[in-house]
Amino acid sequence: MTEFGMDDFRTFRLDEDYVNFDRLLCPLRRATVAIAFLTVGHAASLPAQATTRQPPERIRKEPPRVAVPLGPAKYVKEAGTMWTFDAPPFEYWKQTYGFTPDSTWLTHVRLASVRLPGCSASFVSARGLVLTNHHCARACVATASPADTNYNTTGFVASTIADERKCSTLYVDQLQSIEDVTPQIRGAVTAKAPDAQVAQRDSAIASVQTECQTATHLRCEVVTLYQGGMYSLYRYQRFTDVRLVMVPEEEAAFFGGDPDNFTYPRYDLDMALLRVYQNDSPMVVTDYLKWSKSGARDGDLVFVTGNPGSTGRLLTLAQMQYLRDVEYPFTLAVFDRAMTMLNALSAQSAENQRKYENLIFGIANSQKAIKGYRAGLLDSTIMARKAGFERDLRARVDADPALRPKYSTAWTEIANAEKQLTAMAAQANYYGFSFNPPFGSQLLNWAGGLVRIPAESALVDTKRLPQYRGAGLARIRQALLADQPVDTSTERLELTAFLKAVQQGLPPNDPYRAVVLGVRAPEDVAASLMSGTKLASVSARQALLDGGSAAVDTSTDPMIVLARKILPLADQAQLAQARLNDIISANVDKVGQALFAVYNTKLPPDATFSLRISDGVVKGYPYNGTIAPYKTTFYGMFAHASEFDDKAPFHLPDRWMQQRPKMDLTTPLDFVSTNDIIGGNSGSPVINRDGELVGLIFDGNIESLPNRFIFTDDAARSVSVSSRAIIEALRNVYESSRLADELEGK
Amino acid sequence: MTEFGMDDFRTFRLDEDYVNFDRLLCPLRRATVAIAFLTVGHAASLPAQATTRQPPERIRKEPPRVAVPLGPAKYVKEAGTMWTFDAPPFEYWKQTYGFTPDSTWLTHVRLASVRLPGCSASFVSARGLVLTNHHCARACVATASPADTNYNTTGFVASTIADERKCSTLYVDQLQSIEDVTPQIRGAVTAKAPDAQVAQRDSAIASVQTECQTATHLRCEVVTLYQGGMYSLYRYQRFTDVRLVMVPEEEAAFFGGDPDNFTYPRYDLDMALLRVYQNDSPMVVTDYLKWSKSGARDGDLVFVTGNPGSTGRLLTLAQMQYLRDVEYPFTLAVFDRAMTMLNALSAQSAENQRKYENLIFGIANSQKAIKGYRAGLLDSTIMARKAGFERDLRARVDADPALRPKYSTAWTEIANAEKQLTAMAAQANYYGFSFNPPFGSQLLNWAGGLVRIPAESALVDTKRLPQYRGAGLARIRQALLADQPVDTSTERLELTAFLKAVQQGLPPNDPYRAVVLGVRAPEDVAASLMSGTKLASVSARQALLDGGSAAVDTSTDPMIVLARKILPLADQAQLAQARLNDIISANVDKVGQALFAVYNTKLPPDATFSLRISDGVVKGYPYNGTIAPYKTTFYGMFAHASEFDDKAPFHLPDRWMQQRPKMDLTTPLDFVSTNDIIGGNSGSPVINRDGELVGLIFDGNIESLPNRFIFTDDAARSVSVSSRAIIEALRNVYESSRLADELEGK
Repeated sequence: MTEFGMDDFRTFRLDEDYVNFDRLLCPLRRATVAIAFLTVGHAASLPAQATTRQPPERIRKEPPRVAVPLGPAKYVKEAGTMWTFDAPPFEYWKQTYGFTPDSTWLTHVRLASVRLPGCSASFVSARGLVLTNHHCARACVATASPADTNYNTTGFVASTIADERKCSTLYVDQLQSIEDVTPQIRGAVTAKAPDAQVAQRDSAIASVQTECQTATHLRCEVVTLYQGGMYSLYRYQRFTDVRLVMVPEEEAAFFGGDPDNFTYPRYDLDMALLRVYQNDSPMVVTDYLKWSKSGARDGDLVFVTGNPGSTGRLLTLAQMQYLRDVEYPFTLAVFDRAMTMLNALSAQSAENQRKYENLIFGIANSQKAIKGYRAGLLDSTIMARKAGFERDLRARVDADPALRPKYSTAWTEIANAEKQLTAMAAQANYYGFSFNPPFGSQLLNWAGGLVRIPAESALVDTKRLPQYRGAGLARIRQALLADQPVDTSTERLELTAFLKAVQQGLPPNDPYRAVVLGVRAPEDVAASLMSGTKLASVSARQALLDGGSAAVDTSTDPMIVLARKILPLADQAQLAQARLNDIISANVDKVGQALFAVYNTKLPPDATFSLRISDGVVKGYPYNGTIAPYKTTFYGMFAHASEFDDKAPFHLPDRWMQQRPKMDLTTPLDFVSTNDIIGGNSGSPVINRDGELVGLIFDGNIESLPNRFIFTDDAARSVSVSSRAIIEALRNVYESSRLADELEGK
Repeated sequence: MTEFGMDDFRTFRLDEDYVNFDRLLCPLRRATVAIAFLTVGHAASLPAQATTRQPPERIRKEPPRVAVPLGPAKYVKEAGTMWTFDAPPFEYWKQTYGFTPDSTWLTHVRLASVRLPGCSASFVSARGLVLTNHHCARACVATASPADTNYNTTGFVASTIADERKCSTLYVDQLQSIEDVTPQIRGAVTAKAPDAQVAQRDSAIASVQTECQTATHLRCEVVTLYQGGMYSLYRYQRFTDVRLVMVPEEEAAFFGGDPDNFTYPRYDLDMALLRVYQNDSPMVVTDYLKWSKSGARDGDLVFVTGNPGSTGRLLTLAQMQYLRDVEYPFTLAVFDRAMTMLNALSAQSAENQRKYENLIFGIANSQKAIKGYRAGLLDSTIMARKAGFERDLRARVDADPALRPKYSTAWTEIANAEKQLTAMAAQANYYGFSFNPPFGSQLLNWAGGLVRIPAESALVDTKRLPQYRGAGLARIRQALLADQPVDTSTERLELTAFLKAVQQGLPPNDPYRAVVLGVRAPEDVAASLMSGTKLASVSARQALLDGGSAAVDTSTDPMIVLARKILPLADQAQLAQARLNDIISANVDKVGQALFAVYNTKLPPDATFSLRISDGVVKGYPYNGTIAPYKTTFYGMFAHASEFDDKAPFHLPDRWMQQRPKMDLTTPLDFVSTNDIIGGNSGSPVINRDGELVGLIFDGNIESLPNRFIFTDDAARSVSVSSRAIIEALRNVYESSRLADELEGK
């Protein structure tokens, strides 16, 4: 829990969740975790598993590991199918599908598959056309729009090449090569002390990257796989002249809106066409994906090439149990509290309703995501598979004299640390300065920053709390001086809701509860804090900042007085958690390395927002008591519009209503397949055996949410736009035979 | 478990389940329970709760009942809304909807609502048109079809009145009046002994019915409500000249087939139009439902008037826990075993696949139903509501000196009996003669009948096992002599599967297991039984029957030898169960009477296949991570057809494909509402405030299955055909302006 968490609140989309997943696991952001709320993106480079925690007691009741004969370590399905291009599973593909691609096939689809910031995409014409999702091109589309309009909303089709419009924010990275640099990185680590080891490793990574960049003029990234089991150097060619060619209206691209997000059956044309230019001319591309004539058919083998952001499949059982039993329930309680408050506010006036509508939808979507992840963790079958896998892995480690001393205790160490974190969950959850709205009080949050800044400023960087290190302190100072109006009535509701949660969540004799509430009612405490504080004024905050510790220590502002009392409790809770998380982090690295030592690349590594290839099959699934079809058609899109009385988010653009008579409504619109994807895969091409494009990934169904932790394909599906829908829409809705012909190679 | 259970296997549909529900609870038919498999219908007249059983141990951990202030007994939602017409909840309707119908309104909708065998229907024109479901008119449609065709499949539209075709099997019952006859029935019961009381009550009921029929020439039925808390005399006018006017093709009426059964969104025109004739002319009807112009709109208050067959809302918590923990899991295991075997058989040849396809679909549907019921019993929120209701009811009984001595111990008596049934569940489940295919061995089943008949014949009727009483013995004898071919390879699979289940379900020292298996493998036992038996031959069975006990006792046929060993074990298990079920049955009656004593008609009674009126609201619901729309449209029907590549059961009739350009595809097709329905309600009209018909009930969604035990309306919905769909189809698909005009009163 920290005082500066939420920069923005947006709907949680496929391309964003990998960022937020890391955040979710960040122990210092327990409630603002908030999965959906954090837009700062650099956390994505942390390994997802580095920072989680702890199990309920039952971890101790784990059955004794018995010596069973262990065959050779083989691929297991729960590890998923996010294969790296330098270790393609030829034998598995051959056995499973009778598919035996050669290296030319692989090189071709690798070069045709590109990365955008936070998303994936592909080259789809010899003249540099790039296909991705509507929601991956939003920033580009916004910059390409004239001042008086927003192409994201209205849609855009460049009638001629001259009409294609420059995107200032977008670039395209094409993966040129991968090199195993594990020996270089490992070799550089010679120190004994863990801190020094980390520094040596980071420095080795930096050298490898710099050397590579100097030598090749490519963008070079060392990717840490299997928590350090393997280090791979990825070299990218970056293209920066990217232009907007075509986007549908948002109503067509995101038809069904937040309610339909993470679900299937689905009716979205979630696409955008961009073009890469070089020297002001369309780039000549050799390795692009040819357009399939037939599209995806029921039962087809298909591949998804893209950049999955983050998965948690290496989390230990103890970590998953902690998420299931402690972390997620608390997060959901925070969401529930916010929803209750926002619904109450919305009921007050039509203005409030408009004001909070998107926020409510966004939180609902985050609830949907967390509940989906948790559903997997609550599924006894899934957890039994995970337990079985872990038991097997530990048995293999224990059976190998070279591995046993290094890794054998890692799972127990993690379990013990998670247990301690569980024991202090109440402190971790509540000991702090509330949260930002809509999850707590802005003013108390500011007060926390004001009392901490003098204390933290006095420390050397490495001794500070994590959020105050590096540029953190300056960022927090800046946020404190933002001229942000405070709605005092909302603020009081937030504060009251937070105090009520404290009252319910902490026992009566808890020191934090004693300090913030004592025997008073939450409403009364909130009222007296609100009536006495001046912190809503920027100048008051400025004065306290300028006055340093003297000003803070002598302030009689009730928020500051309370924050001073909270400070030692909050610091203590944060430091205790940080210590346990360090233990977990170190042992999670061991688990990853142990996995790699046992399986090598027979199992794909957790996602790292680098290029992967996943195999799967186009296939319906059991749902809602019946069967979900493997595809939807344009008929279904018009069905939904009429079934929801053409109300948003099921309203179709006028252009679609007008062009409908020209359309073949039986054309496939979206389809599902068993490929293994996650946030970051948005915009990935779906490719058939012949290397042709048959679809465009844009989401997963709700049953796929548990795949974050354990892959299954009974009902979990990736959701794609059909290649045939794109042609049909280009020809008969947008009347752009120019683009349809280019895609079809005519 | 019994030797003669399954007459037929059909898909479990809304109009049938009330029959099967009773069967399900019949203890002597534990596995053939089979919900879906029994077509003999007279069990429906038993009270649903009369024959159930027993709870897991946790029943004993029930919290102590504390004295809390009890306000007046009020309507509680979990009791549902199946109101009788003699006790309409005027105050509740007024408070909930501001709706205050007068007695004219009620009389009108009562007279317009009629009953068909197993179904409901309504008068919808002044000239005797009756609207019901396609699946309610199947028998009628079959008899009305010419020899070379089946109108159920092809559809039928009478072009003129002269073309309307006589149905020989159908009649229509119109409820004329209801009279409370509780005093007459109660007054007649003067004996002390329970057996004598039952006889006096049955005789009083028979007298009341006979007197009424003599006096009124109406059909008179005494309906037992609240397990004898109340007795009501229902008087019906019966109309027997019923003619077929119009049915759609089955592909349109049952679009989506078994997979979509019990689900929504749905796209079915599940309708049939019949006409009642008197003196060879269309009957002149005053009380018919006028056709609504606007149809059902989002949020509309609507009523369903129809004949719900059977609910289990008065089951005690202990009974529900028994169903959840013992009965249903065993039933599902039997289904699973059958499915495994049928799938293996289907995989052997295309012929087998065709042969077993319907059976597999039918079992899948039964699994869907049972899993749905059980889902409610597994839902902690639903069970907590049930527990709270039961606690409150018991507290009210205990607080009333008049009720306490009569009823206070009933719940505990039931719980104790259920506990004993649970303890003997293994015997109850397995001690018998296998089952009929596809759930066990036909030959062993026959052997059981052959060894039992001499023993049972020797007893007076009342001392026989229930299935041998009355006409039972003769029926079993007849079944034994049916010239039914036996497929020995299938038979061996069935027998092996049953023996394997015995091996898994019973401990090694169990006497039944010792007798049928000993230490031998199931495969070996099955093989030696099959190779030695002659029972597949009718003449062999005839000889054993003719030879009586002497022949049976000396037979060396291995099936007979085994059956002789099983007999005493099976008899003992059946009798022990019967004794416990009698205890439960008597106490269940007390629970019903206690409920009535406390609530009187403030709570509607459990369903009795007599006319009820249920209130509800047209409303979508949360589903699949998103929202289900309150209605579907014809667009959705064509969408589904194209999304499933026009394959059955999502194939549309040619006529629909041809007429599509003439149709307004935005016309509502089906819709959902929160009305309280169950099997028997099929064909019920959905009526708006103005008494106009807006829809036609044909199913419930999958979330409504748990409503069998506890009513909720968070996601549970009734599914209806829209009145507007009927007009659109009549005019633009079937081109019958004659009928559309008549319905619209033009």
